[in-house]
Amino acid sequence: MKKLDLKNGTVDLTHGGGGRAMNQLIHKVFTTAFSNTYLNQGNDQATFKAPLGRMVISTDSFVISPLFFPGGNIGSLAVHGTVNDVAMSGAKPLYLSAGFIIEEGFPLADLTHIVDSMAEAAREAGVFIVTGDTKVVERGKGDGIFITTTGVGSVPDGLDLSGEKIQPGNAVLVSGTIGDHGVAIMSKREGLSFETAIHSDSASLNHMIAEMVEAVPSIRCMRDPTRGGLAATLNELAQQSGLGISLNESAIPLHAEVAGACELLGLDPLNVANEGKLIAICPAKDAEKLLAVMQANELGVDAAIIGEAVVDERYFVSMKTTMGGTRLVDWLSGEQLPRIC
Amino acid sequence: MKKLDLKNGTVDLTHGGGGRAMNQLIHKVFTTAFSNTYLNQGNDQATFKAPLGRMVISTDSFVISPLFFPGGNIGSLAVHGTVNDVAMSGAKPLYLSAGFIIEEGFPLADLTHIVDSMAEAAREAGVFIVTGDTKVVERGKGDGIFITTTGVGSVPDGLDLSGEKIQPGNAVLVSGTIGDHGVAIMSKREGLSFETAIHSDSASLNHMIAEMVEAVPSIRCMRDPTRGGLAATLNELAQQSGLGISLNESAIPLHAEVAGACELLGLDPLNVANEGKLIAICPAKDAEKLLAVMQANELGVDAAIIGEAVVDERYFVSMKTTMGGTRLVDWLSGEQLPRIC
Repeated sequence: MKKLDLKNGTVDLTHGGGGRAMNQLIHKVFTTAFSNTYLNQGNDQATFKAPLGRMVISTDSFVISPLFFPGGNIGSLAVHGTVNDVAMSGAKPLYLSAGFIIEEGFPLADLTHIVDSMAEAAREAGVFIVTGDTKVVERGKGDGIFITTTGVGSVPDGLDLSGEKIQPGNAVLVSGTIGDHGVAIMSKREGLSFETAIHSDSASLNHMIAEMVEAVPSIRCMRDPTRGGLAATLNELAQQSGLGISLNESAIPLHAEVAGACELLGLDPLNVANEGKLIAICPAKDAEKLLAVMQANELGVDAAIIGEAVVDERYFVSMKTTMGGTRLVDWLSGEQLPRIC
Repeated sequence: MKKLDLKNGTVDLTHGGGGRAMNQLIHKVFTTAFSNTYLNQGNDQATFKAPLGRMVISTDSFVISPLFFPGGNIGSLAVHGTVNDVAMSGAKPLYLSAGFIIEEGFPLADLTHIVDSMAEAAREAGVFIVTGDTKVVERGKGDGIFITTTGVGSVPDGLDLSGEKIQPGNAVLVSGTIGDHGVAIMSKREGLSFETAIHSDSASLNHMIAEMVEAVPSIRCMRDPTRGGLAATLNELAQQSGLGISLNESAIPLHAEVAGACELLGLDPLNVANEGKLIAICPAKDAEKLLAVMQANELGVDAAIIGEAVVDERYFVSMKTTMGGTRLVDWLSGEQLPRIC
């Protein structure tokens, strides 16, 4: 069998066939980058010692386009996104699995770049990619590469976060500027080119979250406002808690460049996707303490208290605008642009 | 927002956008079919009590074409395949996650059918689908639907199966006829139409495995010979154990119709994919007992002892043929046909 040409070669259908070619791809590309004692067991499943107490599991499929964007690529995003979904429960993310669906003809150099980014993101987050799968589809039946990651984590004893636990008067915090990811992706889309220095905020938030739940165990709920942005996530939380949410527009952190890009594109930044931000809801009396913990972490320097939960039988999210009025913050039917993550 | 037309409607890009349309699709299609206390928590991750001892995690992406085939569809297959990958370690599968990548325009009736099949397969296997994700890609950037499932399970105390544990003289068993899945799929492929009554063997083997490991805890290793068939799996095990494997062709269970189809297509049944079969390796002295346990289960009635592990520094898999000779059982570079699972 010919040697894998990682510089100029491409993925072909034999790489998904379960034979020698797939074995070679797995060993040269995936095992090399992800190497850890779990993955290296070489079985179709990875074994690990169960942590004590409660665990969480979360999964996300990543189909972002373009695959490479300012601030990351589909590989780093696939680690950050699932690490964050696990961590939002307050859990410590431990292990990830990764399923790859690759289109025939995909450059091996791009695959290696993506896989290396995943490995780097996993190291930073302190998680192991312990098992995986590779499938190859014919040219025109996919779009380069799709990655599905699943993460499991361990919930600290006594912690039980849920949208249902939100109480009227609870403070709503966001960990930083909103809309950065969505604007960074849109700036690279065909037909939408515009100049911006904005990078995606894609990042693993688990270390900051560990600091947050340790300092303020009274946190009710955390959520990452990805697809659909802050508006969709807050509307989901309003529904789940049976409360309304009242926001102060002037308190919401927003890069001037993101505001400008949204104005240009006719978008509301509240609907634009984030990948390295979280919303946290906690008792009002603990809000300043939580804010200080977030601001002390490099991923939360722009954190802010942006509103509060209120009694509202209609479960509305409303916002006091910088103009002095109040408007409803609705969620859209869909994302403004598909494949933002 | 308009009502979902589950009979004549199709998936559109808004269904992957994180807004109201996605929320509606999730509730009408996924939550309804999969309903369980874990999924119904409604968070971005599911929480469960960690079992004591060791756990396993395994993942598979399913890209099978056609989506519907004799004996199943991509939904039932996505449950069976991951349940089996978890169970091959001897573990009891507990929870599954499911990531869906759907092509714009995919019929909602087909999606509902597939999701219902997943729910049914999960009930039969005794596992819960506890969390998931939905992405939609533009027409021509996918192929109907791809599903990635990840499973976690709990390993019975004291059990530690691995290919490395295989010893010279150990018996090699297979749970039934080989090649059924691959032939069933090929019979439906465009350009390959031929008449056959063969159905895919796609099934969850976890209940039979629980009986096997309880009766014969000396089992060294189990593996499901999916992509690449018996030949690829046995070659992997030979490499992992540093031994050779010697097979008896006359002992390998094979439907006459599968043999005929393989002859017609110029294929070796040893290379053809299975989805509801397993290979088990155990000490020779326990082989008859293990065989009896397998044959007593409806999924193992055709089980057979097909060979043994032997000392061979080249790690070759060889086979005594029905003609009286011996031939090498090599694994192919790739699958004969892509997208068999």
